[in-house]
Amino acid sequence: MPDILALIKAKRDGRAHPERDIRWLLATLDQVPDYQLSAWLMACVCNGLTVEETTWLTDGMARSGEMLDLSDVPGPRVDKHSTGGVGDKVSLVLAPLVAANGATMAKLSGRGLGHTGGTIDKLESFAGFRTDLSPEAFKAQLQAIRVAIAGQSGRLAPADGRLYALRDVTGTVESPGLICASILSKKIAAGADAILLDVKTGAGAFMETEGEAADLALLMQQVGQRLGRQVVCAVSEMGQPLGRAVGNAIEVVEALETLAGRGPEDLRELCVSLGALLLEAGGVVTDLAAARRRLETSLSDGSALAKFREMVAHQGGDPAAVDDPARLPGAAHRHAIRATAAGYVTAIHARAVGEAASLLGAGRRVKGDVLDLGAGVILLRKVGDPVAAGEQIADLLTNDPSRLPAAEMRLADAFSIGQEAVPPPPLIKAVFGTRWPSTASASA
Amino acid sequence: MPDILALIKAKRDGRAHPERDIRWLLATLDQVPDYQLSAWLMACVCNGLTVEETTWLTDGMARSGEMLDLSDVPGPRVDKHSTGGVGDKVSLVLAPLVAANGATMAKLSGRGLGHTGGTIDKLESFAGFRTDLSPEAFKAQLQAIRVAIAGQSGRLAPADGRLYALRDVTGTVESPGLICASILSKKIAAGADAILLDVKTGAGAFMETEGEAADLALLMQQVGQRLGRQVVCAVSEMGQPLGRAVGNAIEVVEALETLAGRGPEDLRELCVSLGALLLEAGGVVTDLAAARRRLETSLSDGSALAKFREMVAHQGGDPAAVDDPARLPGAAHRHAIRATAAGYVTAIHARAVGEAASLLGAGRRVKGDVLDLGAGVILLRKVGDPVAAGEQIADLLTNDPSRLPAAEMRLADAFSIGQEAVPPPPLIKAVFGTRWPSTASASA
Repeated sequence: MPDILALIKAKRDGRAHPERDIRWLLATLDQVPDYQLSAWLMACVCNGLTVEETTWLTDGMARSGEMLDLSDVPGPRVDKHSTGGVGDKVSLVLAPLVAANGATMAKLSGRGLGHTGGTIDKLESFAGFRTDLSPEAFKAQLQAIRVAIAGQSGRLAPADGRLYALRDVTGTVESPGLICASILSKKIAAGADAILLDVKTGAGAFMETEGEAADLALLMQQVGQRLGRQVVCAVSEMGQPLGRAVGNAIEVVEALETLAGRGPEDLRELCVSLGALLLEAGGVVTDLAAARRRLETSLSDGSALAKFREMVAHQGGDPAAVDDPARLPGAAHRHAIRATAAGYVTAIHARAVGEAASLLGAGRRVKGDVLDLGAGVILLRKVGDPVAAGEQIADLLTNDPSRLPAAEMRLADAFSIGQEAVPPPPLIKAVFGTRWPSTASASA
Repeated sequence: MPDILALIKAKRDGRAHPERDIRWLLATLDQVPDYQLSAWLMACVCNGLTVEETTWLTDGMARSGEMLDLSDVPGPRVDKHSTGGVGDKVSLVLAPLVAANGATMAKLSGRGLGHTGGTIDKLESFAGFRTDLSPEAFKAQLQAIRVAIAGQSGRLAPADGRLYALRDVTGTVESPGLICASILSKKIAAGADAILLDVKTGAGAFMETEGEAADLALLMQQVGQRLGRQVVCAVSEMGQPLGRAVGNAIEVVEALETLAGRGPEDLRELCVSLGALLLEAGGVVTDLAAARRRLETSLSDGSALAKFREMVAHQGGDPAAVDDPARLPGAAHRHAIRATAAGYVTAIHARAVGEAASLLGAGRRVKGDVLDLGAGVILLRKVGDPVAAGEQIADLLTNDPSRLPAAEMRLADAFSIGQEAVPPPPLIKAVFGTRWPSTASASA
């Protein structure tokens, strides 16, 4: 019979746990005190978890609470998770986009803590939008329109809730195995057949180095495969923020523009690439190039935007705001940021931009903070663009002008300006779990 | 301003803490929850502590509660700690031995958990013996007779109490830095000028390999030096139990025999060697060979035994038992263990012997267990001795005959018998912090 002290010592000494030990740990998790769990978590961070250990942990965490049964919803049921980047409004575009093209996007999402709000917060820019859907309402909406985005329920994968809360306060978040189990267990409990994981890398992202991000992506692909789910993982660039808007309502506006066939090129390109991978993972298409054309058509013919409008209406939001973004929260105060030198933008430090947006009111410092949904940063120049000295390069938006000086200071070093033009960085650096060449960039 | 999460992450990532971070941790220890402390402890076990970090930790822990002021007790004030071995009754001999030779032995000791009782438990074999001395009674006894052995007070180095209790249940005992800080902080808080540390190595000991034991001994010597205490560390052999008795009252009997100039050769030799090192560390002698002769004389002329008798009387114990061991707790049941083959004893597995003694009632499985003070194992043959097939090689003693079968089973593989005689292993393998050659064996 295993016991918790023996498990801790085994991991401390770098030994791999057998399956029964991990099953036992999850079965008795309620009886294990925090101080022993945190010692075990730190030993996992220091000494690692194998693919097998991670698989058992993921499966056990998925089974630790309710399992959402989506078998009576038309398939394929797909879901998407991003490790979080600055200006990442991909879910807002991708969900209606794939739902308009033969997949059912059953998306459970969290609130944000950090740079900006999460997808749930951004959607609350629509007056009346409800995200606390019951399992029945969630499934009924999926049956009706094939897309729903609701708040994460604590009844799914509760073991992850316990572990994550402890990891957050004990410096034990940073373990590929623990990260994989946390993300995948929730997606599996939520009933997804096919899962797209977008692992961000770069200065504003959770994984700062490309190697770390690739290791995590490969691990998640392998674990998904062992658990019988189609998992595709993309390692994407967060060297600069995605698109031009970093905030909440302003990101919604940018997503709406993209769904209407306009919008920034990088956001549009990434959504089409990830959408094609998700349709492939869900078995809707086999030819990625054809999938891309199909997705681009639904952006230009209004069908993706129509799907988004249906979703807003179904979830109680103001559908008129979809066509009239002036109805979304705005900002009473604007402040221009100007270039201090002439040249070309060679880099934009995504984390600095995210922190500036948070200082303007777009992000939470602690759980429960009320967001200024209209606040944020608009980037008027991106990497590769030429700038003149004194030319405006960014706009700060807030409803509380006392927040402007700190945000401006934080943004001061975010732009690097050089004398030679550099090409914008590739969007997707690697893909795991597709027939796509694993090193292909999205634009290749 | 440091914070606990930053400290945990720094140690998790293998960085050394600056002094102010360790001082801050100890100053705010009461506010740090167990789950964060255990994560930090595990990061220390996995990634280590430097000599400097260990020094600050030791000093801070020593200062975390009362500091015993022995300045009005005749010096040098010396203390001794062993990392714990099977059959280790050295303190019982060493304390009166050095007190009879110009040093003051102010010894605070713990109760045992594991193979056998601790020094405090063994002394309670004397009916009436009190170990809960107040600081005033402890000092008064030292002034009168230069020797006292009392129970460890929770008011000295309370930070160690908090950390040790947590380490014990989170698999974080096994860190040289944490072990060093735990041991030395208590000795420093107890007012010792010179400290002898006996680090046991071998199958029955806390540190199983000689390299680990030597690393710990060197670390303790270095930390003691930095904190201005004379610290001498001996790495001694626990390849077989020390002496012939493993239990509580039977170890007292063996200590009394040794104090009377008889007793097993290995125990006598180790006590004389460690005593000489302690007198040197305390500045009582400069010539170790002369010190050894002086100590041997006090064993043969009865002065060391007289000092022990004074101590028993001062602490309320029955002094008549010193000269009549039949007055100590006995065992109603004896069981002979016999050799299964003829040859020479080539090894005796100390841990197996210790566990057999514990199964007979001599040790605690959990805190609060009541000991059978008369129980234990007597070894009739030691490494190097010839044996005939069927000859008795050990005696099991207990007051509960139902305990005999399990103990006999545990002892079954403890003796290795070969066809060629092997010499007994050296007692002391290395010494740190003396002018003695560091690789000299005690018998050299």
